[in-house]
Amino acid sequence: MRKADIHYCPRCAARVESREGFGQLRPTCPACGWIFFEDPKVAAAVLVQNETARVLLVRRVNEPFRGFWTLPAGFVNGGEDPALAAARECLEETGLTVEITGLLDIYSRREHARGADFVIFYRARVTGGQAAPADDADALDWFTPGQFPPLAFSATRYILEKFT
Amino acid sequence: MRKADIHYCPRCAARVESREGFGQLRPTCPACGWIFFEDPKVAAAVLVQNETARVLLVRRVNEPFRGFWTLPAGFVNGGEDPALAAARECLEETGLTVEITGLLDIYSRREHARGADFVIFYRARVTGGQAAPADDADALDWFTPGQFPPLAFSATRYILEKFT
Repeated sequence: MRKADIHYCPRCAARVESREGFGQLRPTCPACGWIFFEDPKVAAAVLVQNETARVLLVRRVNEPFRGFWTLPAGFVNGGEDPALAAARECLEETGLTVEITGLLDIYSRREHARGADFVIFYRARVTGGQAAPADDADALDWFTPGQFPPLAFSATRYILEKFT
Repeated sequence: MRKADIHYCPRCAARVESREGFGQLRPTCPACGWIFFEDPKVAAAVLVQNETARVLLVRRVNEPFRGFWTLPAGFVNGGEDPALAAARECLEETGLTVEITGLLDIYSRREHARGADFVIFYRARVTGGQAAPADDADALDWFTPGQFPPLAFSATRYILEKFT
């Protein structure tokens, strides 16, 4: 949740005010003292390569970048292990179960209004499942590095360039 | 912000209901349709070693684990690069400016009620500043691996064991 979305105190329904606190202006409740600390929006993604080094990509069904390709990825829920979130999103989008084998990198930059503040990238390998696009993806395929289709997000391009 | 803290819609002040949506029960506003997605609470920490491999630790001034030692660390704000958050927290707690030199690991486990869901650990090196504890720390010192003082958090112990 973003600061700009907060007009009323979620604890007591009083109108909030913007007050300085802990180093920045924060929505603050003059009635009950509640202070809003904005947590980051975090995404997690997997880089999966097969035995010939081809990379698993999915085609986005949603805007922005509808029709462009990216790594299986999605938001990390509060309380969720980001590695498990990355594997869950891969299963949801591709039908493939994966094992996370390593932490690759973190890419920090909000690329669009509803996007993540940063993306955590893991390397993973397929352990099972039946490949079929679903959820945020309407196609999936394996691509040879250097021959990728049009890619969504600078984060995707950065990671593919650095790690494949 | 946690789900359990949300009783009223921050957008329109109506009483929220718990409704199934996007795979889990989420506080949902029956009046305006607002849905709460809980973002993770994220902390970032630095592992700094000097030229004799001694590790920079700070002593906690706050509960839990008041008086125990840990790596310089703190919460990542919404919109903040976690690497910059780690460096900022180090400066706030130790007076030392650091350069982040690498991503080490992510440790995922909420260790106490007000704790982070996961902690991102970076390696860093001191580039300047004047060592003086402040903010969440009331002491700082450099310790030889194997001779650490009583440590706060299993995350701290895990990272020191794995990387020093």
